[in-house]
Amino acid sequence: MEHNKTSAAISPTKRVRCIVKLGGAAITCKIKLETIDEENLKEVSSQLRQAFVLDSTSANVLGMDWSKRPGQSEVPSIINDFSDQPVADSESFIVVHGAGSFGHFQSSKSGVHKGGLSRPLVKAGFVATRISVTSLNLEIVRALAREGIPSIGMSPFSCGWSTRQRNMTEADISMVIKAIDTGFVPVMHGDAVLDALQECTILSGDVIIRHLVHFFLRGPPVEPAAVLIREIAVREDGSWSVVKPKLEDTIEFTVAAHDTTGGMVTKITEAAMIAKLVIDVYITKAGTDHSVKALSWNLERWHT
Amino acid sequence: MEHNKTSAAISPTKRVRCIVKLGGAAITCKIKLETIDEENLKEVSSQLRQAFVLDSTSANVLGMDWSKRPGQSEVPSIINDFSDQPVADSESFIVVHGAGSFGHFQSSKSGVHKGGLSRPLVKAGFVATRISVTSLNLEIVRALAREGIPSIGMSPFSCGWSTRQRNMTEADISMVIKAIDTGFVPVMHGDAVLDALQECTILSGDVIIRHLVHFFLRGPPVEPAAVLIREIAVREDGSWSVVKPKLEDTIEFTVAAHDTTGGMVTKITEAAMIAKLVIDVYITKAGTDHSVKALSWNLERWHT
Repeated sequence: MEHNKTSAAISPTKRVRCIVKLGGAAITCKIKLETIDEENLKEVSSQLRQAFVLDSTSANVLGMDWSKRPGQSEVPSIINDFSDQPVADSESFIVVHGAGSFGHFQSSKSGVHKGGLSRPLVKAGFVATRISVTSLNLEIVRALAREGIPSIGMSPFSCGWSTRQRNMTEADISMVIKAIDTGFVPVMHGDAVLDALQECTILSGDVIIRHLVHFFLRGPPVEPAAVLIREIAVREDGSWSVVKPKLEDTIEFTVAAHDTTGGMVTKITEAAMIAKLVIDVYITKAGTDHSVKALSWNLERWHT
Repeated sequence: MEHNKTSAAISPTKRVRCIVKLGGAAITCKIKLETIDEENLKEVSSQLRQAFVLDSTSANVLGMDWSKRPGQSEVPSIINDFSDQPVADSESFIVVHGAGSFGHFQSSKSGVHKGGLSRPLVKAGFVATRISVTSLNLEIVRALAREGIPSIGMSPFSCGWSTRQRNMTEADISMVIKAIDTGFVPVMHGDAVLDALQECTILSGDVIIRHLVHFFLRGPPVEPAAVLIREIAVREDGSWSVVKPKLEDTIEFTVAAHDTTGGMVTKITEAAMIAKLVIDVYITKAGTDHSVKALSWNLERWHT
């Protein structure tokens, strides 16, 4: 992986506490086309507020989504409450979300991940995929903003991120750093991007996370292996295999036909790459007690 | 204005025929909060298709917005038509749109244009403004895509554009160039951005256009002055005044209280700066015969 010079030269002044991946299946109804799991998204956003916005209670949330609500012509009255409020600060974190029932259909139907922009179907699919994933991104940014999290949507494509034969080559993170340093929470997502060899492809949220981890997270040099890492062996070349529990048969990972980002195999591969850097990786179901626990555990270790 | 090194080093391989500004008042109901003028937006998008997509008729439009339509659970059936289609190409252009009834309320209420991100109201307003303008951007991208225009939303903030005391300093257009070179139509918009001195401000669509003009348009070296330019005198320092028709009194431009981008004064100032480069500037009402005429005139001159 090559890094853009701009990125390498800039260091964030604020320390990023963690990178939160919101799985597509957790925030959308994965089998129902372009449908957000509103209840789960609200719960996840609330949990993130509790974990990261200091002195936050559900009673003193100052919403930052001032858009018109459906069926109303007026803006939310919450804006008038701001004048009395002290400065509320939040700890630095980054959100990366998957696509769930957004984007996958458009990209798989057109074969955007395989490249070839001169084909009308691929070109149209590229446009359609970006429309779908950016509309999901907007809704997630809004859900977080409603919980008082200063979220900022940032599309990998617009940030200038691109690949070469599906491997990330250009990923200037200077704007991500600036957003964090000024107190915002970047919200990134899997996206259709340009590829130097095959013209275009799909950049998955998991690959984005691995890239961000390199820049933002510093793992402790010697640390007992985390729970999930004890079960997977990662070889020098980045390949991995499950070693615990011991299994008689080989494991088979199924990938849904419409999933153009590789499903669980990609997720575990990327998680393994991060684990190699001695950085904690938790895979939990979003919006549950497990995710709260994972966030708290991270918080405890952060402060010790 | 300083230019980022990356931008200066890259030249587009495709020639950009024109930069189209869609005024906020033309595509939204300016007095009705966050309401799109659907009819006008559809008409404008159709006109842009006719002007730029080669061999385009209303009968053979291949829509590129494959999102679920309201009240439907299925995607549009149009996708199945692509396999039979020859490669349709479109001439290169860029769309920049204003905010209209999107964003202005959020930015003026919080004073984002005046800066000061340490104030909770400004910080929340920054988030709220970006949510509002990016949701408008998404709808415009979708409207253009439905007309078969390969539109790609690109937010100035995400592109890393920023200002210093409200003057543009960093505006890396390498991604805009890449989008054009690969056959897409970048759709940019006025946005809340970071400012090196006052922490944040609003970057108007008109300022964005002037910046893009410097890179993408090459005016003929000697050319009779365009209609609008005959009426305005532009001085060396960039200031301007109306000289034709001759007026007894000074002209007063009114700016709506909620308009944080400067209204017509900014528009004319930016237009004058572009005119200084001997580049045609047409200010017409979008979606009318006048705009068709302006686009055709541009087309004729383009081909001669």
